Amino acid sequence: MSDKKYTVITGASSGIGYAAAKAFAARGKNLIVTARRETQLASLRDEIMAAHPGVEVVVKTADLSVPENAHRLYDELRAYGIETWVNNAGFGSYGSVAEQNLTKIESILRLNIEALTILSTLFVHDYRDAAGAQLINISSCGGYTIVPTAVTYCATKFYVSAFTEGLAQELIASGAKLRAKVLAPAATATEFGKVANDVETYDYNARFGTYHTAEQMADFLLRLYDNDKILGRVDRETYEFELTDPLLPYAAGSSRNQKCEEEPNKDTIDALYEAEQIVNDPAVVRYTDVEEALKELKR
Amino acid sequence: MSDKKYTVITGASSGIGYAAAKAFAARGKNLIVTARRETQLASLRDEIMAAHPGVEVVVKTADLSVPENAHRLYDELRAYGIETWVNNAGFGSYGSVAEQNLTKIESILRLNIEALTILSTLFVHDYRDAAGAQLINISSCGGYTIVPTAVTYCATKFYVSAFTEGLAQELIASGAKLRAKVLAPAATATEFGKVANDVETYDYNARFGTYHTAEQMADFLLRLYDNDKILGRVDRETYEFELTDPLLPYAAGSSRNQKCEEEPNKDTIDALYEAEQIVNDPAVVRYTDVEEALKELKR
Repeated sequence: MSDKKYTVITGASSGIGYAAAKAFAARGKNLIVTARRETQLASLRDEIMAAHPGVEVVVKTADLSVPENAHRLYDELRAYGIETWVNNAGFGSYGSVAEQNLTKIESILRLNIEALTILSTLFVHDYRDAAGAQLINISSCGGYTIVPTAVTYCATKFYVSAFTEGLAQELIASGAKLRAKVLAPAATATEFGKVANDVETYDYNARFGTYHTAEQMADFLLRLYDNDKILGRVDRETYEFELTDPLLPYAAGSSRNQKCEEEPNKDTIDALYEAEQIVNDPAVVRYTDVEEALKELKR
Repeated sequence: MSDKKYTVITGASSGIGYAAAKAFAARGKNLIVTARRETQLASLRDEIMAAHPGVEVVVKTADLSVPENAHRLYDELRAYGIETWVNNAGFGSYGSVAEQNLTKIESILRLNIEALTILSTLFVHDYRDAAGAQLINISSCGGYTIVPTAVTYCATKFYVSAFTEGLAQELIASGAKLRAKVLAPAATATEFGKVANDVETYDYNARFGTYHTAEQMADFLLRLYDNDKILGRVDRETYEFELTDPLLPYAAGSSRNQKCEEEPNKDTIDALYEAEQIVNDPAVVRYTDVEEALKELKR
């Protein structure tokens, strides 16, 4: 493995992932971009390499809604030194729970939750002591506020928010160097609207009116990347972007948490240690007869 | 299908599920109990049928950490009339994200999240208009507060809380008769501790000190069942049980929500309707010659 470092972005074939790849490239970051659609990834690579000839772009096609593919992708990337990992791949679904299509929903659960968890865990396992390393998971405003007609999608994003906020604090508490962060966009004009509504065309002006562009969101992502705060979120009502501390309750130090397993008492450990030293000391005189030993002791 | 009604409880082979089955049986409710372990389910059935000879107990073994099995279970239960569905099956894992065992974690995600979503969706689809029907999903205090060393487990329970609170409000808003509810226990002396810590024995007195028994939790579950509130939760610090409104933010009626697709203007619909009536009216005189029609009109 050379010293070359890479930024991994999942779901990079369009939307926030595509814009984020260009934004990291503009900073001279080498990229590993992944998504299902090879044509779009190749266009992204061509676009970046034309604008930034010194930047390397590695294309990896993968359908991360199949958990085995998340493992395979990570294994393939063991050959690269990774600086930043952005779990951006994800999609949604509008409609009532009663009428939702379970085939689509199960894909959402596996991509938004399972692949994100697998890739986060493997990356944190390998890079927790790497100075400057960052894991950025893309959640949503819907990961802090449940939105009617998007209940299941929001629940997946509550998972992402809780998992990543918890992980971020666990890493800091453990003295790890890796930082984990959450980005929570509001409506952003991407392919999200089409996919979530199962339609061929989607008009963000008509359906939302207020929204961000993917390029604006990529800019917010870089502001989060540059900052020590754990959460970068768009306020769902004002559309202001803010960098903040975690929002979800976190029970650090609560006396109600599971206690560590009982460890041997320190006095017991000290006594055993002392006994071991005496046993191993060649200068210690050994008595086989108890009476003789007592006599010696009284002397 | 007869008029006989059943209460389905998943994860009924031990712990809260086992105690809940006995508590519903004591009210004369027929049961369908499911879990992986047939021996424990058979003991439960024998115990209930000895105490309550009039109660029917149907045993269905299923490993719901395999999503296909959740679909199969539901299909098998289409022959029964269901009154209440309790998604209780679930397990946890203590430890850091960096060191967590992904095989175990992926099972947790599929059981706690995917199976619960599949079964909730199918049940709500079929029973939303059934008066008295209830769906009760078992979350956790950890589904409202992230607990250090249990981050991924808590994230699965944030999913359950958000999904079920959102669903509950969606059902009420849509005029459905089915009610969805969330139970959020704190530490409860069950097999949870052993499984979450991968140990053979686990001492709730040593590791928690304060906790509820499975029987106490089953009693809380029935209090939630009897009440109109959506959430029954144990306060993690005081261990008091309270029935409350949903706790997570819910963006009902926000102008920031996705707007409905543009529907045809009412005037346009009225005009089309009127035109259709004229076309279909046999009393209407038809002119093939425009000049003749105009002459008739001027008369």
